[in-house]
Amino acid sequence: MCELLGMSTKYPMDICFSFSGLMQRGGKTGPHKDGWGIAFYEGRGCRAFHDPYPSSNSEIAKLVKNYPIKSSNVICHIRKANSGKVCLENTHPFIRELWGRNWCFAHNGQLRGIKRKLKLELFEPVGTTDSEFAFCWILDQVHKKYPNPPKKDEVLWNYIKKLIDHLSEFGVFNILMCDSKYLYAHCSTKLAWITRKPPFGKAKLVDDDMTVDFCQHTTSNDIFTVIATVPLTANEEWSIASKGDFLVFKDGIQKNTK
Amino acid sequence: MCELLGMSTKYPMDICFSFSGLMQRGGKTGPHKDGWGIAFYEGRGCRAFHDPYPSSNSEIAKLVKNYPIKSSNVICHIRKANSGKVCLENTHPFIRELWGRNWCFAHNGQLRGIKRKLKLELFEPVGTTDSEFAFCWILDQVHKKYPNPPKKDEVLWNYIKKLIDHLSEFGVFNILMCDSKYLYAHCSTKLAWITRKPPFGKAKLVDDDMTVDFCQHTTSNDIFTVIATVPLTANEEWSIASKGDFLVFKDGIQKNTK
Repeated sequence: MCELLGMSTKYPMDICFSFSGLMQRGGKTGPHKDGWGIAFYEGRGCRAFHDPYPSSNSEIAKLVKNYPIKSSNVICHIRKANSGKVCLENTHPFIRELWGRNWCFAHNGQLRGIKRKLKLELFEPVGTTDSEFAFCWILDQVHKKYPNPPKKDEVLWNYIKKLIDHLSEFGVFNILMCDSKYLYAHCSTKLAWITRKPPFGKAKLVDDDMTVDFCQHTTSNDIFTVIATVPLTANEEWSIASKGDFLVFKDGIQKNTK
Repeated sequence: MCELLGMSTKYPMDICFSFSGLMQRGGKTGPHKDGWGIAFYEGRGCRAFHDPYPSSNSEIAKLVKNYPIKSSNVICHIRKANSGKVCLENTHPFIRELWGRNWCFAHNGQLRGIKRKLKLELFEPVGTTDSEFAFCWILDQVHKKYPNPPKKDEVLWNYIKKLIDHLSEFGVFNILMCDSKYLYAHCSTKLAWITRKPPFGKAKLVDDDMTVDFCQHTTSNDIFTVIATVPLTANEEWSIASKGDFLVFKDGIQKNTK
């Protein structure tokens, strides 16, 4: 199994603190030593760092940990390979362009038989994981139904939810996905999130001997949500998602998808 | 105008030496301070570093300079903005997937009126540069003519050459492009390359006080070609491309495209 980390913010922020916790699980406090990747959205652009080596002693992970990249949406993944060998092309998150927007996707779980039962048309995987295949299938279906973005965002959310429900029938499908505008999260077995807003307090990482006082890194206008497979801090109250939950975030807060 | 740097190798090698020279032109020995990017192919995977800040004092550029990433095809670009504002989404190289392969593209020059006169279908730019638009147009045309890769690679080269010739009518089109298998280069106004093979010697950068003895970094089996808008070393003989030259490289050597 892999670990997921996502962030949605009102104003661009860095993710150094949460990333510090997660990267310890890549070979140190956790068994996820088969590579890692992180994608940062900045405006319409998206830049990603991928490394097929363990994050706990990666030079690139050190850079990401110490170099504050300000972003409004972040998706990060550390991998414990179960489908597809350990190599760069199998390293999440995966990125594709649709409608002139960067889409990004990371997955925790396994989907059995998906390659046999679903057909792809336009979007094709570069690597061999079931995860990238599932992402390509989602984009294929979205593109087929909406060659141009639907006018109402809720229409898109509902369609994506339907596609995710279908994919979940193949196995465990905890995911984070971003279409440049919204950050989507789905829970099959485990997913937790926390929305931090004023008054900000202190947080202590579970995986590293590190505490941050968010007061010193935020303004009174900041709001941000962090999403992870398992809570990253010990002294805060995280919301725990249930099986089948589909969450949509924008500007740091959860949207009402009912 | 921008600067291009590419490398094609027989066996994966790092590009630290050539990159050290080029990054000095990003705000120090050259005026190309509007961001930079580099893409490394490793197997079927491709990982890129993008930074909308000058390369000469970029933290990420320092990492790339000092951390030897072994790659068989590399495309690097430093930008002097002339079309599209300075931001992440306008930072080369651009990457898209076609046929389950990563395609990568960087451009030096300007194409006037291209957005008015050419239509896009499947591939859409995320940013506002004429360069990304041209890349999307190439992929659109290739996909339309060959929904699957043609059996003979030469057929693809000839078609790409035809598309490039058409785009060159809009202005200056010095480019580097890679389809995961081949590294393509086109010269409108300036492009130079050098193929290094045994016996290896010493090379001295034009832009930095740095000399490398390739004997110490290679084996007797290595062959590699470096391509740049302007020669990067002072003591070696570079081949200078002519207007309209279309070059194809694989495994470090130039293919015969006649």
